[in-house]
Amino acid sequence: MSDKNERQELETLGEFALIEQLTKGFEHKNKSTAVGIGDDAAVIENGDFQTVISTDLLVEGIHFDLTYVPLKHLGYKAVVVNLSDIYAMNAIPKQITVSVALSNRFSVQAMEELYTGIQEACDYYGVDLIGGDTTSSVKGLLLSVTAIGQGEKGKLAYRNGAKPGDIVCITGDLGGAFLGLQILEREKQIYMAHPDVKPELQGHDYIIGRQLKPEARKDIIEQFAQADLVPTSMIDISDGLASELMHICKASNTGVYVEEANLPIHPDVFQTALDLKLDPIMCTMSGGEDYELLFTIKPEDLDKVRFMADIFIAGEITEASEGITLHTKQGNIYPLKAQGWKHF
Amino acid sequence: MSDKNERQELETLGEFALIEQLTKGFEHKNKSTAVGIGDDAAVIENGDFQTVISTDLLVEGIHFDLTYVPLKHLGYKAVVVNLSDIYAMNAIPKQITVSVALSNRFSVQAMEELYTGIQEACDYYGVDLIGGDTTSSVKGLLLSVTAIGQGEKGKLAYRNGAKPGDIVCITGDLGGAFLGLQILEREKQIYMAHPDVKPELQGHDYIIGRQLKPEARKDIIEQFAQADLVPTSMIDISDGLASELMHICKASNTGVYVEEANLPIHPDVFQTALDLKLDPIMCTMSGGEDYELLFTIKPEDLDKVRFMADIFIAGEITEASEGITLHTKQGNIYPLKAQGWKHF
Repeated sequence: MSDKNERQELETLGEFALIEQLTKGFEHKNKSTAVGIGDDAAVIENGDFQTVISTDLLVEGIHFDLTYVPLKHLGYKAVVVNLSDIYAMNAIPKQITVSVALSNRFSVQAMEELYTGIQEACDYYGVDLIGGDTTSSVKGLLLSVTAIGQGEKGKLAYRNGAKPGDIVCITGDLGGAFLGLQILEREKQIYMAHPDVKPELQGHDYIIGRQLKPEARKDIIEQFAQADLVPTSMIDISDGLASELMHICKASNTGVYVEEANLPIHPDVFQTALDLKLDPIMCTMSGGEDYELLFTIKPEDLDKVRFMADIFIAGEITEASEGITLHTKQGNIYPLKAQGWKHF
Repeated sequence: MSDKNERQELETLGEFALIEQLTKGFEHKNKSTAVGIGDDAAVIENGDFQTVISTDLLVEGIHFDLTYVPLKHLGYKAVVVNLSDIYAMNAIPKQITVSVALSNRFSVQAMEELYTGIQEACDYYGVDLIGGDTTSSVKGLLLSVTAIGQGEKGKLAYRNGAKPGDIVCITGDLGGAFLGLQILEREKQIYMAHPDVKPELQGHDYIIGRQLKPEARKDIIEQFAQADLVPTSMIDISDGLASELMHICKASNTGVYVEEANLPIHPDVFQTALDLKLDPIMCTMSGGEDYELLFTIKPEDLDKVRFMADIFIAGEITEASEGITLHTKQGNIYPLKAQGWKHF
């Protein structure tokens, strides 16, 4: 460890600033490296098409709690969250690698459960498991998944292509995964205080499903290909809509507004938010882990998405000077703040 | 966790058998997936050439000990061990992703040290850092590195191509990294018992360097290209020569013998082994982490390697029925056992 300077704590930076600071001196040396750090995935030139790579680390006690996450669901979700990043580039995932570190608290059967979930995701999304590493950990379970996809030249969708006037679209309802987690956490707390009380999960199937078994929007990318539509920008909604809007606007050097009235909210999300005394709009704007897609299109492409299933037209890209705002049903304009996951 | 069956402990299987058991049901669905699990790296077809992918997980307390491993060296080594797998396919690494999980015990400066080492390796080997993930851990530091390389069609070297009569070659001396680790561990134990005693590392520069700052054999792969030589099989020596010979023989369905007299042993390795009352041949056969290359060539290619720097002709591939053996200087024949790293 460096003793030369005054110690700077990790939490003073946050994930994105830390990565930026650590990698600022790195330069690309290979012609084939088209895009490095900073989008949903990296891009490698491969002659006629492009290879797209994304990787995620999932740590027990930080990203998941095995008290209520079945290992099979964990395996499935670990794959899905990576595939989501590949789809968010408008590319098709083809292969994954999965590395696992685990303590001897886990049995072979437990690992088989995990890999059953991984295999189900591979089968459903048509990707191949091609490698990985398995090792012991000092404590807990850790998963590192890397997804490799294929994109057509000129058809990838980056974060930096949005232009003022572009239309902002969202592929499905938001906030469900966040509220599902709140319910699971509430029931865990009750269970820990009173182990004899059965968890009350009835009526919350939808939001718990959103948390435990999210899906990546393969179907949307297939619709884009059929409609010959390439979004001007795209990102998957893993940290919450507000945070992702900021990523798009920062990378594209634009502003944006979204209309509260047009935000896709599932009735169960709305009701659960009220039951938990939370603002449904806040849950929709800032709840993470729904793995829907946020994308922008040119106004002239509006007819291509208007009748696609599950696509919500939520707002418009503006000049950067107009900021990032929410237009409420009452006609008020609020500036947005990101409340995505902070790990440190 | 699965309660259905009797609990099977992870240590009953070992790493390779566990991976085999967990992934046996997975089938490849994509034409582009040329090679999956089972070699140094996976291979993806990409038109005129092939993309080669390898990934490694390094866990504090399992793979490294920060008591004596400087973070800069750790960053360098984490990259090198992955590049070594790409070279072992006779391919050229081009990109890496690096994911890090770390507890708040680490400062920003500590992470900068780590990334300085990562960057030095990237610069030296000409690879680009293109992505990764950074998150907190409950305990300790964990690194997941994925390397992406490029291979020419028909020129990749797999584990399964060795044929009886092929000549067995090794690219450098073995056992040094293992003995370097023994010295570091010895001095750590002394330091922990008597913090006022200075560690005695003098005279051990070579073997400690082999442990803390290994290099991947980029130079050898470049020599192969110049000589228009494609090994019939190749693997990097990460778990020890005996273990790697077994991998080649299992994949190629052959036997092998190596001549004790031809094993490359550095004088410092020999002397340190004796000082520690260890058998130098055992250290050479079973010490891991040297990251040299083990490869086989057709007899008619012998002239191509005879005068290459740092290449030792160590033995010959045989029929599988003849087993995996060491021929001693005294003319004895011993069957070999793998004593590679066991994680569980």
